[in-house]
Amino acid sequence: MREVFQQELREVQDRLVEIASLVADSIQKATTAFNESNVALAEIVIEEDDRIDTAALELDELAIQILARQQPVARDLRIVVSALRISASLERMGDMSTHIAQLSRYRFPEKVVPKSLRPTFVEMGQLDVGIARMLTELLRTQDVAIAEQIRNEDDKVDALHLSVFDKVLGESWKGQAVDTVDSTLASRYHERFADHAVSISKKVQYLATGDWIPADS
Amino acid sequence: MREVFQQELREVQDRLVEIASLVADSIQKATTAFNESNVALAEIVIEEDDRIDTAALELDELAIQILARQQPVARDLRIVVSALRISASLERMGDMSTHIAQLSRYRFPEKVVPKSLRPTFVEMGQLDVGIARMLTELLRTQDVAIAEQIRNEDDKVDALHLSVFDKVLGESWKGQAVDTVDSTLASRYHERFADHAVSISKKVQYLATGDWIPADS
Repeated sequence: MREVFQQELREVQDRLVEIASLVADSIQKATTAFNESNVALAEIVIEEDDRIDTAALELDELAIQILARQQPVARDLRIVVSALRISASLERMGDMSTHIAQLSRYRFPEKVVPKSLRPTFVEMGQLDVGIARMLTELLRTQDVAIAEQIRNEDDKVDALHLSVFDKVLGESWKGQAVDTVDSTLASRYHERFADHAVSISKKVQYLATGDWIPADS
Repeated sequence: MREVFQQELREVQDRLVEIASLVADSIQKATTAFNESNVALAEIVIEEDDRIDTAALELDELAIQILARQQPVARDLRIVVSALRISASLERMGDMSTHIAQLSRYRFPEKVVPKSLRPTFVEMGQLDVGIARMLTELLRTQDVAIAEQIRNEDDKVDALHLSVFDKVLGESWKGQAVDTVDSTLASRYHERFADHAVSISKKVQYLATGDWIPADS
């Protein structure tokens, strides 16, 4: 029974890695679409979000079946519950990616953000993609040093997010209301994307170290 | 064993009702603080969010203990997993409420939104408060007719959310960038608050009818 359970846990882990990898591909395409006003790529991101949702759903089903069949207790039980929460966060990362793609589709053929903010969004996009790749690696290896790196990268995203507000609210801001709205939303989506990654990292740290991390962290 | 389990499920339900009631109080204060620029009330909302987080956390612990002790299967198992998800959504509704309160604190003594949008935000606030009260009632009674009402109210919130963008992006908009940013974020927080309520309603419908609702709905 124990062996079957370990095998099922590995299956859960493999699926989490797979979903994280889909999310990383999604944010890579979404930020490219956003920064290059590539509406065809934006459409692809929006269409492919279904795959992430379906994969997350299937993982949830598997986790619930494991709970029913294996009746895990103590740490094993918490691992399965953590997997359910990680899957929910990955699904939301996919949503953020989709929101970013949608912004670039709405404004096409215009660029989403004015020139003065483009380097900031290119950097935020690269950070989000990097974070998603690290997250995939963290889920694969459970190497908690990567969780630390993700937190550091998230600090950079937060700083850029604040800098967007500084720019938009500064005296030299010449953007129209539409630029202000889009920059505000885009910045928030980039920031939330990274936040979810940090929240997942904390849960993986639990899986690796046994420290229980509450759902809202 | 079955009787103990039913009693524990009632305890879970009571706690969900209690947290929903805290969330309803929170959004009522937050929207009042927001619409009346009442910074003292905003501070209270921000401080009291800890209570919601703690209550959600304690409920999660209880649910995990029930899984471990009672080893539920089939529908019973899904009820407990649903409770974990409902608690996570309630916790996030509290976060949205806190974000609304924070906006009014940041801008104090200025009002957060310009005059032309105030009636819209008053209405959105009332809808969110009404939705939170209905949600509390839905969790208490599991009367699925209330779930339907919540969806209808959410449609009104969505329409107001879109109307904020129409106004902000319209030719008659005279707001500064700060007004545009705040209106965009505030509208998004109000809309997300209602969305989480709809997501919870769907899960309660499952509890009542046995139709399994995926996590991302």
